[in-house]
Amino acid sequence: MTRRIDLLVYNAGQVCTVPSVGGGPQRGQMLGTLGLVENGAVAIERGRIVEVSATAELRMRYDAAREINVQGGAVVPGFVDPHTHLVWVGDRAAEFEMRIAGASYMEIMKAGGGINRTVQQVRAAPVEQLVAETRARLDRMLRLGTTTVEIKTGYGLDTPNEIKQLDAIYRLAADHPMTIVSTFMGAHAVPPEYQGRADDYINLIVDEMIPSVVEFAAAHDQPTPFVDVFCEPGAFDAAQSRRVLEAGRGAGMPLKIHADEFAGIGGTRLAVEMGAVSADHLVATPAEDIAALGGSGTAAVALPATPFGLGHTDFTPARKIIEAGGILALATDCNPGTAWCESMPFVMALACRYLRLTPAEALAAATLNAAYAVGLGERIGSLEPGKQADMLVLETPDYRHLAYRFGGNLVRSIIKAGRVVE
Amino acid sequence: MTRRIDLLVYNAGQVCTVPSVGGGPQRGQMLGTLGLVENGAVAIERGRIVEVSATAELRMRYDAAREINVQGGAVVPGFVDPHTHLVWVGDRAAEFEMRIAGASYMEIMKAGGGINRTVQQVRAAPVEQLVAETRARLDRMLRLGTTTVEIKTGYGLDTPNEIKQLDAIYRLAADHPMTIVSTFMGAHAVPPEYQGRADDYINLIVDEMIPSVVEFAAAHDQPTPFVDVFCEPGAFDAAQSRRVLEAGRGAGMPLKIHADEFAGIGGTRLAVEMGAVSADHLVATPAEDIAALGGSGTAAVALPATPFGLGHTDFTPARKIIEAGGILALATDCNPGTAWCESMPFVMALACRYLRLTPAEALAAATLNAAYAVGLGERIGSLEPGKQADMLVLETPDYRHLAYRFGGNLVRSIIKAGRVVE
Repeated sequence: MTRRIDLLVYNAGQVCTVPSVGGGPQRGQMLGTLGLVENGAVAIERGRIVEVSATAELRMRYDAAREINVQGGAVVPGFVDPHTHLVWVGDRAAEFEMRIAGASYMEIMKAGGGINRTVQQVRAAPVEQLVAETRARLDRMLRLGTTTVEIKTGYGLDTPNEIKQLDAIYRLAADHPMTIVSTFMGAHAVPPEYQGRADDYINLIVDEMIPSVVEFAAAHDQPTPFVDVFCEPGAFDAAQSRRVLEAGRGAGMPLKIHADEFAGIGGTRLAVEMGAVSADHLVATPAEDIAALGGSGTAAVALPATPFGLGHTDFTPARKIIEAGGILALATDCNPGTAWCESMPFVMALACRYLRLTPAEALAAATLNAAYAVGLGERIGSLEPGKQADMLVLETPDYRHLAYRFGGNLVRSIIKAGRVVE
Repeated sequence: MTRRIDLLVYNAGQVCTVPSVGGGPQRGQMLGTLGLVENGAVAIERGRIVEVSATAELRMRYDAAREINVQGGAVVPGFVDPHTHLVWVGDRAAEFEMRIAGASYMEIMKAGGGINRTVQQVRAAPVEQLVAETRARLDRMLRLGTTTVEIKTGYGLDTPNEIKQLDAIYRLAADHPMTIVSTFMGAHAVPPEYQGRADDYINLIVDEMIPSVVEFAAAHDQPTPFVDVFCEPGAFDAAQSRRVLEAGRGAGMPLKIHADEFAGIGGTRLAVEMGAVSADHLVATPAEDIAALGGSGTAAVALPATPFGLGHTDFTPARKIIEAGGILALATDCNPGTAWCESMPFVMALACRYLRLTPAEALAAATLNAAYAVGLGERIGSLEPGKQADMLVLETPDYRHLAYRFGGNLVRSIIKAGRVVE
């Protein structure tokens, strides 16, 4: 007897299932576990994976309403991009030119450029414009294989404009094929009107923004957003970051942190201590903070497109994080200042070269572990029975080409929640 | 009276004409001259540029058989990729994994991997397979904006197989929309059967290969190919390189050289002395060789995708070459070993970050100067009256986005010799 299903994807040169390990993310030595099925097929029903096995077997066992012969292409889980700042308008190309001429990130920021420029533009823009410019980015990211994306606020930096960014995210979530996870990041920078009064701004975040955000999410039947803070000299110190995270946690928000991008001032250890879902950037992370990540449930999200975008040569010490037993994930950090990069495969290519990940490790870090880094590890990120059928068919029979080649796009087709993206 | 033309491209947010300077390439301080026309248009007849000026003006002045409204997109010259090794079959993904684990380029080569693996595969492949696999690469490169490409032999390393590679190039040139420039590079490596007998292999190149190649080109009504040599420890020394170039020059071939990729052993100065059209790689180039480039007609072709591909952090000292007054160009070096990169915009993005080029300099280096680096500077590379109408319409109104953003593709449409590529 054959079982009736909705979709059978078959004749994959290889299917990389990227399985959970012990029911969780892939840590330490287990990172890069591929669960590889050669000449494989994937059976899908009601948007979920039913089974992954050899083509010959599944074609006998299932009777599919639709069959797709992928003619030898590799099949991998859809990419999860667990760290972006996608809701902006305009660009910062002029600042990019300044930086080539030698200005540093913090210098540009202090000169009133940098993030403040985007804050001005976002504050001035109607929500419809935020939605339109962000939608174009989402569409391109989807074509590059990203099927789930985290998006942060943090260019409003006052209550109405942070809510406006969240509104834009929810409008996009309502009709875009991607799964969108939202994060409130009022603590992205001290806004110009609070210059020199960071603690007062923290008060505003704690007393007004966080309650407003949580209420806004509930009123829109959306999951409570993550709360995030930029723990870095020039932004917020560890004590201020703790206040933001404690208020968020008190309001039921899961936690994230930007830590150690330029200097290690305790952000990662704070994240671990408070049980954050992820700690992100981690370039200047001290050894004891790396050790703390090891046994923890806090994912370490490396963002190599950012040092690359800045023309730097210091990257996340990924091998040390892996050796410590940490949960390593990858993200684009897509933003208009340091890294307008919409491509997870490019991030994988970078990570293999400058973080010394193997292609298999990079794939797991960009899928399963990235799903854990946004709290969706149980539902997406791998091609295991019961999981949402988010998957990519590549132009090549070998998943390693995703990282081995660079600068192009090897994603031939995209299946999101069991539907072929046309 | 309006003049009848074939095509008018109008409503460009900006047209970057990238003009010749003094009738030649852009050198020194002049590198990055954009010849920018805002709200511009381009008039085209019989595949050539007639005029570039403001949209309002040209729409009055010309009556075009076809008009294309590019709705604010930027228009730039088609990219010229002046250094590739595109004719190969298979891949070297396994070697990529080895390298991540710590093996060096020369170690892999000595272990019988590296280029020798591709040589085996190319020797074993029928010409039709070479054509088919290369065609797929050309098609993707065209979509990424490359309208002219140089392709080297150098994976045959014996007379019949070098000729077979050249045959593949000519077959592609016959029906692909791109302009294809060919280079004979029998001196790409010492083949396994000549191990330890490099001078004997040089004899074969000089006595047999070069005459055969020149004859084959003439028999196919093709321009005489460039001759190129890998002047590097482990490949050929300066004296051997000189023998190859002298024999090529004697047979009427214009000259190129691979120099200073890992060590400076005199390749660049040899190129200048012999009047080579280009010297390529130039990472470990000594100061006196950079000075020699300055006054010369030899273009310096930087290949930043190669150190990137290898995960290195040393790149071409481009600013020093510019300061010396050299002709700087950019290329992908697309090859299966160190840099399977098909994207000139990605090379520009790299060059801005790690070679400290401005976006304008990178654009000129990827178009006009790259055309000079393949001997076609009089015919292509800029949007000037009389030149072939090879141009790109971007998704963005600002050419700087080509380098500011990375990992994607901003080329919306391609016009090659006055025809829209569908």
